[in-house]
Amino acid sequence: MKTPSSLEELIGALRCLPGVGPKSAQRMAYHLLQRDKPGAQRLAGALQSALERIRHCEKCNSYAEEAICALCRSPRRDPSLLCVVESPGDLLMMEQAQCYGGLYFVLMGALSPLDGVGPREIHLDRLLRRATDGLVRETILATNFTVEGEATAHYVSELLRAKGIRVSRIARGLPVGGELEHVDSGTLAQAVHERRDI
Amino acid sequence: MKTPSSLEELIGALRCLPGVGPKSAQRMAYHLLQRDKPGAQRLAGALQSALERIRHCEKCNSYAEEAICALCRSPRRDPSLLCVVESPGDLLMMEQAQCYGGLYFVLMGALSPLDGVGPREIHLDRLLRRATDGLVRETILATNFTVEGEATAHYVSELLRAKGIRVSRIARGLPVGGELEHVDSGTLAQAVHERRDI
Repeated sequence: MKTPSSLEELIGALRCLPGVGPKSAQRMAYHLLQRDKPGAQRLAGALQSALERIRHCEKCNSYAEEAICALCRSPRRDPSLLCVVESPGDLLMMEQAQCYGGLYFVLMGALSPLDGVGPREIHLDRLLRRATDGLVRETILATNFTVEGEATAHYVSELLRAKGIRVSRIARGLPVGGELEHVDSGTLAQAVHERRDI
Repeated sequence: MKTPSSLEELIGALRCLPGVGPKSAQRMAYHLLQRDKPGAQRLAGALQSALERIRHCEKCNSYAEEAICALCRSPRRDPSLLCVVESPGDLLMMEQAQCYGGLYFVLMGALSPLDGVGPREIHLDRLLRRATDGLVRETILATNFTVEGEATAHYVSELLRAKGIRVSRIARGLPVGGELEHVDSGTLAQAVHERRDI
């Protein structure tokens, strides 16, 4: 007849997770209660502890438990390079690619006026201060190649160039191992347009 | 360089949820921290409270906050009918179909010897006691039409019939609105095999 109220509340709360609809939320709640109570306990604790301990690094704006994160504190990173990414996940991808030895700035989003995300929401004032600290010689824009990411890159580049800072953008083109037959025509057109001498 | 440890622990804990791999767990953690801290707080609380308050109804074995759930206590339900389902979700589906006015027994699983789920794990001793309480006149098996559900229905029916209890199984066939062209051949074959006089 009626689902117990604490179960109903759990199902409702699970819907806070992105991509989780009513059916999956129900399945998750039943799974936790039926097969993985220690997992549920662990998740409750992890949420609580992350809420209490995670904050934003004062320098790169990524998630950290200290005022300045380990990456920003590292003496091995080149302080003359600053890479701008949309999210901590993107930062992680860059690190996993092991192609970059400089520092980062994480916007925590991308410009999207329709969603109410303007220059202030993505901390462009802080980025500007960060990029003009006297050490940074080049700012590399590594926002996504989506409409929002491209608009953000354009806006940021105008902003920084006005201050006389060198700005670059990561390259667009075919993926490594990519075949012309399987790539979308927009990417192919860009790859031709941005071709390089060899 | 390194994800903060409490964030890493949260990502790990989210993987307890069914169907959540490393990528989705990361996306969920970032979403909660970046856009929905109240949601994370709510989820932590809901998990804790469900763990403390949810138990199994002594009569139907479904989830309840009381010793006997509201459905089992209801005077409007027909105590001569007992429907056996695999999970509380299945019970909910039956209730939503509004086709049944009797009581339930929830197995919390189905026989699956390879996964270590035998008669004891799905509480068949309790089902047997429940079905022989003197009031139940018919036990309707509504386990899934999967290999495990079918095996469970077969096993339970043998068990109950040996005690002289009338046992039935919900029908297999084409879905309402189903077209022969779009149904799998196994279902179609069963529908022909179990055809009814009209």
